[in-house]
Amino acid sequence: MFCKGLLTINAPILRQFSSSAPNVLKIGDVLSETRVFTTQDVVDYAKVSHDSNPLHFDSEVAQNAGFEDRLVHGMLVASLFPRIISSYFPGAVYVSQSLQFRSPVYVGDEILGEIHAINLRETKKKYLAKLTTKCFKNGRLLVLEGEALAILPSLAVEQRHSLADNS
Amino acid sequence: MFCKGLLTINAPILRQFSSSAPNVLKIGDVLSETRVFTTQDVVDYAKVSHDSNPLHFDSEVAQNAGFEDRLVHGMLVASLFPRIISSYFPGAVYVSQSLQFRSPVYVGDEILGEIHAINLRETKKKYLAKLTTKCFKNGRLLVLEGEALAILPSLAVEQRHSLADNS
Repeated sequence: MFCKGLLTINAPILRQFSSSAPNVLKIGDVLSETRVFTTQDVVDYAKVSHDSNPLHFDSEVAQNAGFEDRLVHGMLVASLFPRIISSYFPGAVYVSQSLQFRSPVYVGDEILGEIHAINLRETKKKYLAKLTTKCFKNGRLLVLEGEALAILPSLAVEQRHSLADNS
Repeated sequence: MFCKGLLTINAPILRQFSSSAPNVLKIGDVLSETRVFTTQDVVDYAKVSHDSNPLHFDSEVAQNAGFEDRLVHGMLVASLFPRIISSYFPGAVYVSQSLQFRSPVYVGDEILGEIHAINLRETKKKYLAKLTTKCFKNGRLLVLEGEALAILPSLAVEQRHSLADNS
């Protein structure tokens, strides 16, 4: 699921904080996670979504359509965004998400999902976060981009995570 | 996953065609499908997406956040759109999708997903379709809306389907 004319850009360099103080999200911070989607993931996602588009299951159909091989469902790749948001901020509520599929994702590709906080506004003791959302494959190729709004119950980051920013 | 200030609008009246001639998508046509998400669907989606936000699994957390009960993942509800597109047009390729989560979806809600063709343009022997995408619950309440672009291999509708329009 992609547009022709692939974009190749450099993924931002991530910097891990080593501070032991509680981490709090601020504008400019980047949250990220890497995942490799497997054939079993595609099968499992097709079962729960009822999306059995042959592009995901039939190499010949995919190749005849101009792809190298069977595609990972675009919405499964996009699921990285709420996964990242909710793992850093359990209880986060999605308000909106835009998705532009730029390049195909195949089984086995290493996908880096990245959320970049571009605005944070307090509202009724919660926080409305505006985020740019991107996925890259093999560290460089932009495969999916968009923007999300989410309501965070707090700006404190789940302690098992550390934050990175691209400043 | 929703904004406060719920929108209640009437879902368009759908008209089924009875013609036995091959159905071809045209501007104004509406494709739709109804689905009820189960607890098992939420569990299965969480497994494949790795999204274990407590709002989907803990009634108390969900109620403390202002919801009636545990939420169905918004991206699982949104998966209805590519499911509908690819079931009517196998081999369809997603280009973009915007999603605005308007109202929460709970396990057991009857969700009507609806795709409305608002523009169709031939390009390199395929068709670029611009679609409005909406989900309603209980036939009336708008829970999710947005817009999609998809490349269809053909405008001919998979024969097991019939088309509806709101003209």
